Amino acid sequence: MIPRYSRPEMTAIWSPETKFKIWYEIEAHACDAQAALGVIPKANAEAVWKAKDVAFDVARIDEIEAVTKHDVIAFLTHLAEHIGADEARFVHQGMTSSDVLDTTLNVQLVRAADILLADMDRVLAALKKRAFEHKDTVRIGRSHGIHAEPTTMGLTFARFYAEMERGRQRLVHAREEIATGAISGAVGTFANIDPAVEEHVCLQLGLKPEPISTQVIPRDRHAMFFATLGVIASSMENIAIEIRHMQRTEVLEAEEFFSPGQKGSSAMPHKRNPVLTENLTGLARLVRMTVIPAMENVALWHERDISHSSVERGIAPDATITLDFALSRLAGVIEKLVIYPENMLRNMNKFKGLVMSQRVLLALTQAGVSREDAYRLVQRNAMKVWEQGADFKTELLGDAEVTAALSPAEIEEKFDLGYHTKHVDTIFRRVFGAL
Amino acid sequence: MIPRYSRPEMTAIWSPETKFKIWYEIEAHACDAQAALGVIPKANAEAVWKAKDVAFDVARIDEIEAVTKHDVIAFLTHLAEHIGADEARFVHQGMTSSDVLDTTLNVQLVRAADILLADMDRVLAALKKRAFEHKDTVRIGRSHGIHAEPTTMGLTFARFYAEMERGRQRLVHAREEIATGAISGAVGTFANIDPAVEEHVCLQLGLKPEPISTQVIPRDRHAMFFATLGVIASSMENIAIEIRHMQRTEVLEAEEFFSPGQKGSSAMPHKRNPVLTENLTGLARLVRMTVIPAMENVALWHERDISHSSVERGIAPDATITLDFALSRLAGVIEKLVIYPENMLRNMNKFKGLVMSQRVLLALTQAGVSREDAYRLVQRNAMKVWEQGADFKTELLGDAEVTAALSPAEIEEKFDLGYHTKHVDTIFRRVFGAL
Amino acid sequence: MIPRYSRPEMTAIWSPETKFKIWYEIEAHACDAQAALGVIPKANAEAVWKAKDVAFDVARIDEIEAVTKHDVIAFLTHLAEHIGADEARFVHQGMTSSDVLDTTLNVQLVRAADILLADMDRVLAALKKRAFEHKDTVRIGRSHGIHAEPTTMGLTFARFYAEMERGRQRLVHAREEIATGAISGAVGTFANIDPAVEEHVCLQLGLKPEPISTQVIPRDRHAMFFATLGVIASSMENIAIEIRHMQRTEVLEAEEFFSPGQKGSSAMPHKRNPVLTENLTGLARLVRMTVIPAMENVALWHERDISHSSVERGIAPDATITLDFALSRLAGVIEKLVIYPENMLRNMNKFKGLVMSQRVLLALTQAGVSREDAYRLVQRNAMKVWEQGADFKTELLGDAEVTAALSPAEIEEKFDLGYHTKHVDTIFRRVFGAL
Amino acid sequence: MIPRYSRPEMTAIWSPETKFKIWYEIEAHACDAQAALGVIPKANAEAVWKAKDVAFDVARIDEIEAVTKHDVIAFLTHLAEHIGADEARFVHQGMTSSDVLDTTLNVQLVRAADILLADMDRVLAALKKRAFEHKDTVRIGRSHGIHAEPTTMGLTFARFYAEMERGRQRLVHAREEIATGAISGAVGTFANIDPAVEEHVCLQLGLKPEPISTQVIPRDRHAMFFATLGVIASSMENIAIEIRHMQRTEVLEAEEFFSPGQKGSSAMPHKRNPVLTENLTGLARLVRMTVIPAMENVALWHERDISHSSVERGIAPDATITLDFALSRLAGVIEKLVIYPENMLRNMNKFKGLVMSQRVLLALTQAGVSREDAYRLVQRNAMKVWEQGADFKTELLGDAEVTAALSPAEIEEKFDLGYHTKHVDTIFRRVFGAL
Repeated sequence: MIPRYSRPEMTAIWSPETKFKIWYEIEAHACDAQAALGVIPKANAEAVWKAKDVAFDVARIDEIEAVTKHDVIAFLTHLAEHIGADEARFVHQGMTSSDVLDTTLNVQLVRAADILLADMDRVLAALKKRAFEHKDTVRIGRSHGIHAEPTTMGLTFARFYAEMERGRQRLVHAREEIATGAISGAVGTFANIDPAVEEHVCLQLGLKPEPISTQVIPRDRHAMFFATLGVIASSMENIAIEIRHMQRTEVLEAEEFFSPGQKGSSAMPHKRNPVLTENLTGLARLVRMTVIPAMENVALWHERDISHSSVERGIAPDATITLDFALSRLAGVIEKLVIYPENMLRNMNKFKGLVMSQRVLLALTQAGVSREDAYRLVQRNAMKVWEQGADFKTELLGDAEVTAALSPAEIEEKFDLGYHTKHVDTIFRRVFGAL
Repeated sequence: MIPRYSRPEMTAIWSPETKFKIWYEIEAHACDAQAALGVIPKANAEAVWKAKDVAFDVARIDEIEAVTKHDVIAFLTHLAEHIGADEARFVHQGMTSSDVLDTTLNVQLVRAADILLADMDRVLAALKKRAFEHKDTVRIGRSHGIHAEPTTMGLTFARFYAEMERGRQRLVHAREEIATGAISGAVGTFANIDPAVEEHVCLQLGLKPEPISTQVIPRDRHAMFFATLGVIASSMENIAIEIRHMQRTEVLEAEEFFSPGQKGSSAMPHKRNPVLTENLTGLARLVRMTVIPAMENVALWHERDISHSSVERGIAPDATITLDFALSRLAGVIEKLVIYPENMLRNMNKFKGLVMSQRVLLALTQAGVSREDAYRLVQRNAMKVWEQGADFKTELLGDAEVTAALSPAEIEEKFDLGYHTKHVDTIFRRVFGAL
Repeated sequence: MIPRYSRPEMTAIWSPETKFKIWYEIEAHACDAQAALGVIPKANAEAVWKAKDVAFDVARIDEIEAVTKHDVIAFLTHLAEHIGADEARFVHQGMTSSDVLDTTLNVQLVRAADILLADMDRVLAALKKRAFEHKDTVRIGRSHGIHAEPTTMGLTFARFYAEMERGRQRLVHAREEIATGAISGAVGTFANIDPAVEEHVCLQLGLKPEPISTQVIPRDRHAMFFATLGVIASSMENIAIEIRHMQRTEVLEAEEFFSPGQKGSSAMPHKRNPVLTENLTGLARLVRMTVIPAMENVALWHERDISHSSVERGIAPDATITLDFALSRLAGVIEKLVIYPENMLRNMNKFKGLVMSQRVLLALTQAGVSREDAYRLVQRNAMKVWEQGADFKTELLGDAEVTAALSPAEIEEKFDLGYHTKHVDTIFRRVFGAL
Repeated sequence: MIPRYSRPEMTAIWSPETKFKIWYEIEAHACDAQAALGVIPKANAEAVWKAKDVAFDVARIDEIEAVTKHDVIAFLTHLAEHIGADEARFVHQGMTSSDVLDTTLNVQLVRAADILLADMDRVLAALKKRAFEHKDTVRIGRSHGIHAEPTTMGLTFARFYAEMERGRQRLVHAREEIATGAISGAVGTFANIDPAVEEHVCLQLGLKPEPISTQVIPRDRHAMFFATLGVIASSMENIAIEIRHMQRTEVLEAEEFFSPGQKGSSAMPHKRNPVLTENLTGLARLVRMTVIPAMENVALWHERDISHSSVERGIAPDATITLDFALSRLAGVIEKLVIYPENMLRNMNKFKGLVMSQRVLLALTQAGVSREDAYRLVQRNAMKVWEQGADFKTELLGDAEVTAALSPAEIEEKFDLGYHTKHVDTIFRRVFGAL
């Protein structure tokens, strides 16, 4: 977790305070269930709720842990300080530490997913708004970084929207996968605790009971969760790279918002760096690097080894905090991105009219010119544009062999941008539904 | 692709023959759609189907490509050799190579997913069968590789079943995600081809039209696909590691099947190596390594750069062929795994009765003995087992301080294995439904 | 950085205090060089050293940065508060922020490497000590987890020593690679500063001047550094896995040290978990996961993009702090590892004498018995051991067909452990030099 | 291994023919050593060399393996067919399969490294040639994709040279690390074979004896090898990305060579795609993905498990063949790269003179203008360039407040490109030695 790439709401999920609060809730709900089963006295279960509004003292718990060398026991000892040693007697009965720890981790991941979903909603809203705003803003489409055929800026935003929407659905799935709890004992057999306790606690915490666990909840669920974050981070990188390209000095079709007062640029107006999207490119790597260790965590020995634990202490906060920060930053970048439609036109016409050469070629062949001749005709006029900066349409209109096959009006029509944008609405309907 | 880790059906999906067949189908269906739109003559569209049963000549296509330097043009030239140059005139009209190539890749991935789903069904069937077979076969549950509490072999199979079942559902999702096609032109604007063509071709091939594409289908779909294979491979490794542990000379609770005739072992009966599951451990790494490059492929420049292509030429066949082989091998290993229930009991009793020490401790405290005293009592008897090989129950029954708190019958009851297996049926119902 | 897996000395390297101290030293040395070149007045250069013993006030610098939005400017402003605005006038002249930041990062990585080298020395010393201690402690060598032929515990320690020694040499290389500094300006041309400044600063900081830089030091150096940490972490995992296996209940050839007072184990003497080495297994994954992002950082756009920066803010402290902690923990584990030689013998003889079957087979063929007959003879006696728990040697001595080929003395000799350990000294000399 | 990304010389290293040839050499040299020790008859050792020029029949060996289910035995059987069953009797005596297999793998990796080193030499030669050719070809240096200060194309080539040279040294190290052989028996104790055999075989094959092995050569060596290839691949990507950027339509400072006859471009002269460097970007990912599995291979169980084997069957050929192809392609790209110096100047002057704004700012402050005033002066002239396309120098010369501080000659001097290139020779000397 890197403080400068962290936001408080997500960071709070991973604080000791939150962790102890969830531990408490699990223990308290478990007591209720045990009391309902008649395993422990109702009064003791009720007593636990006396600590409902307590903010547990992390320093005190650490102090106890320094003695007991066991975090859960330290917490339970501290809890007893709040509700009374006698009343606390039955707390945790029949449970193992992992019941508490693993269920807690999943509660945290579910909450993290909820924040990330909200982040994605903001990104989606921004993308949609910008897509409609620039639905008809023509710019050159590029393959291999080379001009190809015209498209619109709105389509670029729309495809990022569609990609993020897919990412959102994947995260909904991943959240559902991780929303399980387990209170099943040392090897998952419920030997010392009734499955009804697990069911009750899970219900209260918004989880489903893990159908079959060992000492721990199976780690394929977590692997899928982190893999999903990795894909979302990669989609984020996809958007970031596009913006970085657009902001290049030679392209300058868009810029990250730069507040007028922001110093440093004053003397060098061209020196506005796409530092936010460069940063997002790096953050994507940080999220993605958690995927492989999460997968390596799946194969535990027998009913559990604890090798996954240190990994998760790192990657669980790191991946969620980083992605939360990054998505939030991404939303801001998109919302405020400065678009330069005139530069888009200027770039498209760098080689005047040349991006239409393929359409002209096609028209010539359709007009009966042989493929070889059509090539020759297009090429000789194209080369004048390429080498001498001529205007492609003008050259074609002045080439007798071309005009023998295509009328001036037909030639003119080939340079109509509407030809390229005629299906923009169709695509928008596919992405956003009825317009 | 490593021949020895390949099976013919999956390998065939990635053969040039299959690829050309799919190219052909896309072109033929596209002609139908173009004819229906009135863009090309119906007769030409029909003529394309003359090649319906042709096995395209890969060597001939390679020969043409050596001249044209373009694979799709080479194929189209060869196709014209089959259906007539004149009839072939309108084939591919308005399309770009990527329309064919990308849609084909997804058809291949869908077919690969179908084989993998069948593989997983076989693994699931084997796991279920073995789970019920050993539902009540008691063995020691282990955490950290150390004996903890009893469980059953059936529960081990059942949890692998549940994990693989989750993997299967993930693959169903991933298959659905990748089942899209795109025929949208050089930058995805449908400038030169009507969206109806895309719709028709996709319908015929069992795909959905990609709502919005550039020159290519967005790569987040593929990233998710490979990530899913990576998680499944990790679950496979989980099973493999369990079997490798069980086959250790000192544990010997199970062995990979070893045919009686298999030489090499004859002189050294203990030297039966779990080479299949060791192999699966390695194969899991090979599948998993494709995840990061698939994610790195997502961020393409503008409407496409071709950096993803070489990656996919490697990882698409490699990951699917390797996982298919591995799942098939895994199914065989599980189906024929030799289980040694007696060794399980022998291992559990390595320290006679000691795995019950925690239950005894609990019983003593519940009988009113103070926590400190209970520890002391259990410990002094446990140490005799640990250090002198005594029998724990016998020692307890002979310890007056213990018997003062617990009757012989009560002590006896603490060693009842049924205590640990009483919820096996509950868990089986959760995993497999009604028994 | 996970506090519980951090040690203060390494953590301190990555503190803001240390960072500012290094920044200060770079600026002060640069002023000296500039003064020597006559670019700035000597008095101003000398004045900078007034702050030599200042502990910079991080909160104050943060406060200034909140206004200036630039970390280096904030620091320089704070520095001026210590040495006087007028005296500070020439500090940083001709330099860019990256000159300071990138050189500082490398100073930090070099210092981190020095700590890691010391850690490895401690691991090496422990391995060597234990290797000699158990040079002749026989135990069974295993391939595939299955008993193969005898070896010694000393050889196990010796091979870990050799592997760690290789890791140490790699780290020496990686440290050398990263020990460069650059003060070359905005695009690395030295346009605004003389190369002599870079040379002087590097000399003072124990670095070499980067022969050619852009705005930044090339990131292949860092990629190699993290890759090297990844390999060392993997070697650490190799040792950890061995210990985890040895501590399994069924094997119990060694245990992590468990202090007598450590509670929890008192009632269950068998329940001593190898939690430290399991932890090391997980920490290895955390170190290893930094390798790919470090490699992705190499390809920066033109003279630099800042995508690497956020990655390094994460992985540089994380990988070095985690590996430092892990190596230190590893050293402790090895130093105090409890070895059980009797259990090693007991395990080796689980199937009495059977591990010698291959030697007997060889002896029979060498004595003129045909390969087929030799197999048959060995097999029929081996199976009695395997199935009925007989003693292999006894059976052989009682088998007339065997004794027809081999005398009792010859049979006896085949069970001599010295046969297997005769080259232990040779190997030790190879690893440790003259004994 | 992807045929289209493979070159015959490297592919040949991984062919069965080569493998069997190396097996043969190991066995033959081992026989010599065994004969010298008096373990086997000299005549038998000599007889083995009868097969010196035999091209082993892979199909025949496969046929035998189908029966024996063991590759090394199959080979030995086939070998006996060449040299006589009786003469072959002592071949492989005292050795285990891994002795042959592992030593062979290292021979293959060493040979692969030699080819890669030659590839790198070609890349280095090309970079050096182009560096000197364009030592003084000025172009704009960019940070964040935004114009910063002038640099030269020669410096770009020079820094790639320096980076590749570092890569080459790393590969020399990695080659040295992997150049070991082991003939030490089933668990590495030399129980059945004298260490002298290992020494002799290694000497003959250009390897060093592995100081201590188990059944296998330790895998940290291989991990380091693949990690090194990963770093080199990343450096290759660094060059590829630069070229892809330079070829963008809007930048067009360089292009991959495009032979005049190459069709497809004829009609669209701007549509020359940097497909080779895009391809290299993808190939870098393929090489890099082998690093993590190679590291996961390090931690084997006890004296060996075979999980590494399937991984290496994939990554050893894949990584070396792919990198060989890629480096060779990279060399060709660099050798023939078409550079457009005029476009470099045109790009640099996109905003006429604006890249010098920082120098002017500095000059104003040095001339005694306050920082605030200097900013204001530079900014108001810079904005005219930025917004109205004015020429920066002209504007400055016409601004009375500016000329009050700086003489026209001083202003003129600030636009001297020589200021930026004055240390190019210094840097070249650092990189290439004396010029």
